[in-house]
Amino acid sequence: MGFDRLIERIESTKNPTVVGLDPKLDYVPQYIVDKCIEKYGETLKAAAKAIYIFNKGIIDEVCELVPAVKLQAAYYEMYGFPGVKVLYKTIQYAKEKGLFVITDGKRNDIGATMEAYAAAHLGKVKVGNTEIEPFGADSLTVNGYLGTDGIVPLLDICKADDKGIFVLAKTSNKSSGELQDKLIGETPVYAEMGDMCEKWGEDTIGKYGYSAVGAVVGATYPSQLTELRERLPHTFFLVPGYGAQGGGAQGLVGAFDENGRGAIVNSSRAIMCAYKAEGCDAQDYAKAARREVIRMRDDINSAIANTKEESN
Amino acid sequence: MGFDRLIERIESTKNPTVVGLDPKLDYVPQYIVDKCIEKYGETLKAAAKAIYIFNKGIIDEVCELVPAVKLQAAYYEMYGFPGVKVLYKTIQYAKEKGLFVITDGKRNDIGATMEAYAAAHLGKVKVGNTEIEPFGADSLTVNGYLGTDGIVPLLDICKADDKGIFVLAKTSNKSSGELQDKLIGETPVYAEMGDMCEKWGEDTIGKYGYSAVGAVVGATYPSQLTELRERLPHTFFLVPGYGAQGGGAQGLVGAFDENGRGAIVNSSRAIMCAYKAEGCDAQDYAKAARREVIRMRDDINSAIANTKEESN
Repeated sequence: MGFDRLIERIESTKNPTVVGLDPKLDYVPQYIVDKCIEKYGETLKAAAKAIYIFNKGIIDEVCELVPAVKLQAAYYEMYGFPGVKVLYKTIQYAKEKGLFVITDGKRNDIGATMEAYAAAHLGKVKVGNTEIEPFGADSLTVNGYLGTDGIVPLLDICKADDKGIFVLAKTSNKSSGELQDKLIGETPVYAEMGDMCEKWGEDTIGKYGYSAVGAVVGATYPSQLTELRERLPHTFFLVPGYGAQGGGAQGLVGAFDENGRGAIVNSSRAIMCAYKAEGCDAQDYAKAARREVIRMRDDINSAIANTKEESN
Repeated sequence: MGFDRLIERIESTKNPTVVGLDPKLDYVPQYIVDKCIEKYGETLKAAAKAIYIFNKGIIDEVCELVPAVKLQAAYYEMYGFPGVKVLYKTIQYAKEKGLFVITDGKRNDIGATMEAYAAAHLGKVKVGNTEIEPFGADSLTVNGYLGTDGIVPLLDICKADDKGIFVLAKTSNKSSGELQDKLIGETPVYAEMGDMCEKWGEDTIGKYGYSAVGAVVGATYPSQLTELRERLPHTFFLVPGYGAQGGGAQGLVGAFDENGRGAIVNSSRAIMCAYKAEGCDAQDYAKAARREVIRMRDDINSAIANTKEESN
């Protein structure tokens, strides 16, 4: 219940970070792309196959170091239905390797349709008498703009199948404030959304005090991170924006509670493209990703440890 | 530019409605489902094949009567990647039949990722030297919670390839007011979002005065429909909630401007399941859908005409 499974994997790996697998074809080493184009032509299938090889390589190298992977649906949809097939295959592969899988789809719709998204990404669907998991992730990011009846269908699956959701509260992008920082009375929209997360989650609180309804809060807004951590004691945070988007480790310690729990920090591009940044051989892209994962883990853990020391 | 192509199809069909193809397997006549299960077993592939047969049957019957179809992505994702393949195939088939295609995906993300969604659903992607349309819809519904930099990548494609988007403003569901009706100063969130649509669209206004940035405004909230029509003179409306969700024709005339333009009204379930409501033979599901399409067209057109008469 809640995010217990994720929290326990964070504790066992001693690593509150998640590897974002957002694979633009440009990120995939050319030798992999070339091999797939040779076999399948300049097709979406070739692109999708290349991405799957790339993803597997990274997963193999990092699966014992990180608790989770986050797959950004957009980068799979970009390669059409062959790409979406690789979204499915990557989820399955990551789960086989013991990883907690977050599908970053930011899905949202009215109740009846949200049931379909919930079944698609977290639940099961029935064909004849057979129940099938269409995608089978452990967790899904969602957008709460439509209010409670767009969230309830997800809660049912969270309870029944021990899954979780992350609702967008304060996103990491530059223009996030245009709506999210506007005040409703004295409360910014992002905090209003956060309050709804607390309410939506109240029946799903797990043994570490966090519910199955988490929130997305960007690393690029440190003061809002700290403010929301205090305001939302039962809401687990998914924190994008570290690394490539400019959020530093020191700025995101506010996302964690006094036990060093309560958040998981994502990095995508800096890990996937570590081989480019390092200037190492493209063949070593997965080893470079592993080095970046270790660097990030140590960077964030030491920032958390330093803050604890200071407050003691 | 703008929604000219859609508006011209509305004028030529004399029909401001769109058929929603949101095919739950339960909506598909059993004889189609049985045939597909016989061939492919109780699999997602069987479900997807059944949905494609069902969709084609409806499209064949209604393509000369309606300007557009709207495909709800959730109902395709629910059947995994085989379902998403049928999303693609249905888009292609509808376009061959001359229909304007709206993918209802309510996508949203930060700039770099929104580029991927934009390329996926409206644009093209490059594999080697070949440009490919991953899904190729004419229009996409999006959620503007993340602000301008989640919208800009879509505008680029709208301008370059004559596409359009619909941003959620006031949705048709019961709990839409939880956030959308909250006041920012004296402006409800839904109107604030509407104002952003006007701003985002200002460089894409077509010959009928409407930009490429439309808004979703539910038929279930007639007074907000009327208010937003006046407030947002360049924003074309996609209006869900007619029929099965309870919005009547009289309530939605406020969505239209003085020329009877400015909106397109969606109905999904009432059309797809017309054969169930009529109690006719399931073999005649497409003919029943056609009858419901005609009934809806006449219902809405006569409500618009009556209102015009009253105001003269």
